[in-house]
Amino acid sequence: MKWILWMVIPSKESISSNNPSLNNIKGCFMSNKRTEIQSLGEFGLINHLTKNNPTYNASTLKSIGDDAAVIDNQGFKTVISTDLLVEGIHFDLMYAPLKHVGYKAVTVNLSDIYAMNAIPKQITVSIAISNRFSVEALEELYAGIYAACRAYKVDLIGGDTTSSPKGLVISVTAIGQGEAKKLTYRNGAKKGDLICITGDLGAAYLGLQLLEREKQIYLQHPTLQPQLDNQSYLVGRQLKPEARRDIIEAFDKNGLIPTAMMDISDGLASELHHICRQSGVGAFIEESGVPIHPDAQMQAIQFKLDPITCALSGGEDYELLFTIDPKDIDRIKYLPDIYIAGEIVDAKDAIKLHTKGGNVHPIKAQGWQHF
Amino acid sequence: MKWILWMVIPSKESISSNNPSLNNIKGCFMSNKRTEIQSLGEFGLINHLTKNNPTYNASTLKSIGDDAAVIDNQGFKTVISTDLLVEGIHFDLMYAPLKHVGYKAVTVNLSDIYAMNAIPKQITVSIAISNRFSVEALEELYAGIYAACRAYKVDLIGGDTTSSPKGLVISVTAIGQGEAKKLTYRNGAKKGDLICITGDLGAAYLGLQLLEREKQIYLQHPTLQPQLDNQSYLVGRQLKPEARRDIIEAFDKNGLIPTAMMDISDGLASELHHICRQSGVGAFIEESGVPIHPDAQMQAIQFKLDPITCALSGGEDYELLFTIDPKDIDRIKYLPDIYIAGEIVDAKDAIKLHTKGGNVHPIKAQGWQHF
Repeated sequence: MKWILWMVIPSKESISSNNPSLNNIKGCFMSNKRTEIQSLGEFGLINHLTKNNPTYNASTLKSIGDDAAVIDNQGFKTVISTDLLVEGIHFDLMYAPLKHVGYKAVTVNLSDIYAMNAIPKQITVSIAISNRFSVEALEELYAGIYAACRAYKVDLIGGDTTSSPKGLVISVTAIGQGEAKKLTYRNGAKKGDLICITGDLGAAYLGLQLLEREKQIYLQHPTLQPQLDNQSYLVGRQLKPEARRDIIEAFDKNGLIPTAMMDISDGLASELHHICRQSGVGAFIEESGVPIHPDAQMQAIQFKLDPITCALSGGEDYELLFTIDPKDIDRIKYLPDIYIAGEIVDAKDAIKLHTKGGNVHPIKAQGWQHF
Repeated sequence: MKWILWMVIPSKESISSNNPSLNNIKGCFMSNKRTEIQSLGEFGLINHLTKNNPTYNASTLKSIGDDAAVIDNQGFKTVISTDLLVEGIHFDLMYAPLKHVGYKAVTVNLSDIYAMNAIPKQITVSIAISNRFSVEALEELYAGIYAACRAYKVDLIGGDTTSSPKGLVISVTAIGQGEAKKLTYRNGAKKGDLICITGDLGAAYLGLQLLEREKQIYLQHPTLQPQLDNQSYLVGRQLKPEARRDIIEAFDKNGLIPTAMMDISDGLASELHHICRQSGVGAFIEESGVPIHPDAQMQAIQFKLDPITCALSGGEDYELLFTIDPKDIDRIKYLPDIYIAGEIVDAKDAIKLHTKGGNVHPIKAQGWQHF
């Protein structure tokens, strides 16, 4: 593979900072050096990938290297989330650098812990790999995993490393701590609550469409280089999503406990249905209240898509959807990046969108279809 | 596939008790009914597979159905272990019934928690499945998972369900509780400690060889039926391993804390090397002290294998290897199923086997090679 990807992804902590070769990726094999995994063996590989594994949390009593890891919980509630990511389903190594795959595999799990109003502390990472992958390729993957650990101060405490007949499989389990009275579930939304969203929606989906378009062009014309110069925002939202730790910390500082919360991984529409079903309520969303980035607006129109449809059904933005009692509005008023998108209503009023044109439509749950 | 498997696997709690069709397996598709997974969708499938999910532990505060699960730890240490199982690498659905695959995926993880001298309380199970699998096939898999939860009183609290381009992938994370002063690591073995093994070794490996032999015969002669009538012990050890909860409970009752412990998943030789390296010691093993079941003895000889080699390098027996201070010998003397196999020695004396013939050989770590 010879596809040169020269995008620069903006972020608080650039995961490419230690690796200039990210600007010059040769498919998923970033370095010209190729060490066969067999030359290390399973335990050699684990040692190699984890020898510089730092510990950020005092609660991590025992990390990698025994039958299990040990966590000291000191009276907090333990919060657990897990995701399984499969090459060809969740990521395409044709355009997703392994470092980004590793980073994203961690952040999407941390996002689930934050969505409980809890703080992630530890992760386990298991991988299954075919013999297509070299030690250098796995170093890239783990560089992304460690970058996420560093950015979010979580400890990698264990995992499993095995072979696969085909492709890469990554399983991440995140373990967090929460205070019982602060934990926020999906089932607490009440009529009259305000529906809030952090950050903008639809960009990750449009970034994916851009990458898929460039992949198809490249497959047909291998001499052409991808046209992604001005698309770093959309591509970055797809390839390197962040979890909203800042929002959870701001809630804590301002004394806010949402009535319900979840992260937006499958799209706003799907997540609204989850919260409404579990809380026994309905929702009324104002189209003008759903935040969409100008780049996403423009790109949606170029793709002949309705921007609000991308925001409702696109998924993978990893923003937080939460509801608050209206009396708490002062606690979010001065927070950047929080948008009030609508209101919780009676279950009988269902889940509806009030469009900018003045019409009211039911919102269907059209999240990511795995099957 | 039309391979009729009529084995009966002995166990404390038969996982086939609710399913007479286990005696009449048609490949991995146990029922003639085939419901496509698409007809349920992702959330429909999750609901279908988890609608009768019981809770055994008061510490399970929030189970399936939110961004993350919540565990109340009440001052205990949290112990975490995870495994990733890949079709074609860890199991072969040609001869492993899905119910057994599900059961084993759980028990091998629980075994890691017990090996810390802790008690497993919760598990998460993630699966990736290709469209080859029907809803009925997944029901079989989950029947095995639930049977293991019931047998060991652990709660299934979460997971992820997604598609795979090919084959079945199962990721299990087990969460347990341990008391700080009782947790047993691999690094505590001291010179003079006795090396103990629970149950017999080598049988799971020989069961696998039998199943592989019958598979090859079947592939060449599809009208022949497998010859496994008298091999239920060996085949059962391979297809339905149990974790040694009974031993951990007996330790607790008798006030014994081993100096080091791990479970035997890769073979005694490999595990001895782990304990010796991490404890900075050597080991001297008596061949006559390594327990081998008569069926394993017989079958090894029929396969022209040395029984002690099967016990040392076979793996997958999921017995416990532990070391105790000699002053604690009275605490294990009357426990069934515990064998003293040797003694911890100085690191400079390495890891050696004293054979029945009177020779002394170094023991090499020849565990399962994933790569």
